[in-house]
Amino acid sequence: SMRRRFEEVCRNAQASICAAIEEIDGEGKFKTDAWVRENGGGGMRRELQGGKVFGKAGVNLSVVHGTMPQEALKAATERGVDRAKGMKPGERVPFFACGLSSVMHPKNPFAPTMHFNYRYFETDGGVWWFGGGTDITPSYLNEEDMQHFHGTYKQTCDKHDPAFYPRFKKQADDYFVIPHRGETRGCGGIFYDDMNDLEGKTADEMYAFAADGLDSVVPSYLPIVDKHKDDPFTQKNKEWQLMRRGRYVEFNLVYDRGTIFGLKTGGRIESILMSLPETARWEYNHKVEPGSEEDKILQVFRNPREWV
Amino acid sequence: SMRRRFEEVCRNAQASICAAIEEIDGEGKFKTDAWVRENGGGGMRRELQGGKVFGKAGVNLSVVHGTMPQEALKAATERGVDRAKGMKPGERVPFFACGLSSVMHPKNPFAPTMHFNYRYFETDGGVWWFGGGTDITPSYLNEEDMQHFHGTYKQTCDKHDPAFYPRFKKQADDYFVIPHRGETRGCGGIFYDDMNDLEGKTADEMYAFAADGLDSVVPSYLPIVDKHKDDPFTQKNKEWQLMRRGRYVEFNLVYDRGTIFGLKTGGRIESILMSLPETARWEYNHKVEPGSEEDKILQVFRNPREWV
Repeated sequence: SMRRRFEEVCRNAQASICAAIEEIDGEGKFKTDAWVRENGGGGMRRELQGGKVFGKAGVNLSVVHGTMPQEALKAATERGVDRAKGMKPGERVPFFACGLSSVMHPKNPFAPTMHFNYRYFETDGGVWWFGGGTDITPSYLNEEDMQHFHGTYKQTCDKHDPAFYPRFKKQADDYFVIPHRGETRGCGGIFYDDMNDLEGKTADEMYAFAADGLDSVVPSYLPIVDKHKDDPFTQKNKEWQLMRRGRYVEFNLVYDRGTIFGLKTGGRIESILMSLPETARWEYNHKVEPGSEEDKILQVFRNPREWV
Repeated sequence: SMRRRFEEVCRNAQASICAAIEEIDGEGKFKTDAWVRENGGGGMRRELQGGKVFGKAGVNLSVVHGTMPQEALKAATERGVDRAKGMKPGERVPFFACGLSSVMHPKNPFAPTMHFNYRYFETDGGVWWFGGGTDITPSYLNEEDMQHFHGTYKQTCDKHDPAFYPRFKKQADDYFVIPHRGETRGCGGIFYDDMNDLEGKTADEMYAFAADGLDSVVPSYLPIVDKHKDDPFTQKNKEWQLMRRGRYVEFNLVYDRGTIFGLKTGGRIESILMSLPETARWEYNHKVEPGSEEDKILQVFRNPREWV
């Protein structure tokens, strides 16, 4: 079944991504923490803290099932209204949801933060969708790195549909925005949600796309970390990185749908806030010097660019 | 007029509080930044960064006037509905608002953070109210300090009405809560809003109460900073302080009404986020040792206590 196949691809990705991170880190090891959900299912959190290369890296698997009110299903998707049809009023919808999500915060200011999340949802009544995406957040601009990251995901997308990369790249640019700053959180990537048969793709095709998205995490990201993990840096570089992490916190706590939903509905706090960096910084009225390296990337955050 | 009198008391408090902070810091100096509001009024921000004792301390005066839609006035207070009566539909309400707000983050983990905000609002139609409060956020519990801080504000309250301290102390405990953590942000203080003639007090009486609230900032707080500014501390103490600052960020970005309103309606970002600490920290799944000093204050955050 798709449930088992998607869970398996997530489990395998969790294992291989964590192994690759540990290898590049050289010192830090992931701690594993299995959990059981009271109403069905559970998951496995893996977290590395205080490594040599990574300050904080987490990869969380969650596989939950149970029943939900029809209203919750409707709220979960714009198209949910039709999908609950045929059910009696008040009848609860049996559902299954599986996802793998991750945030990696390297220590070196020239090594970018990376986030991904791939998920599958289905109900017993035949409603299903996939969602996912991978995005990158550097503190300093390296065009070659951004071309590599976006180029890898463009290739991954193109294998499935040439329309995917431009569409999902734009969705990432539109989603990862900090409106009160007039900036994006980082340099984007791809982002998609609520993908099902309406997109003209079969579940098998979408499964293959999600699996490829997960497989592209390591080749799109780790070569960039490897390249910069030992870059020399100044105190100013470090402070700028921590200020950018402050912006990361602002996005996640003020705008990220999953974070706010989780906090306000009583999800497991440590998993929800796993995405926050180990350290963040706010300087009052900080201004970057025009023409500086800090200014260079700020311009990109203000006007998202095409990389490939 | 009350406008001028309240503005004057705020201006004087800003000057005297900043002078007292500079004196205790010994090195850091406040930078002053005057601003003008496009639609009427302006203010003066004073900010000290990277001092010897204070990592970040800000005291912001704002004096604005203009007109607002009746709906905005209604939204600003539960009782606003009646106050706009007599106005034609669509007619805008001329208003005046003045406030002094501040957050101080000392460096030493044993010196608490302090926040205050005192404000006055009125419309040409005779609607008016006062709001305000001062609250303290230590990372480690020192009962004597909390007794001093709360005791000072109890005395201030008692001079005006013996019902004030218990009522406003409870309002602070109820307001400064981080629901997703099941914790308060700190050890509270006093908090009141929308105080007007309905409370049986004249504007003169409420003005005198607000002025005393401002006058109590220095004697309630600075002796505590003075006592702890040179306390020896370990790396563990510092990390715990930064984690508590992470909680401060969580409260302000996820729950604080003023912060969220400001961010989402396009206020001046640097003033709104002045309250954020210079540095904050998030450790995955951090647990305090039972019986430790960290545990001791966590118990207080979980079950607010009476101090006087």
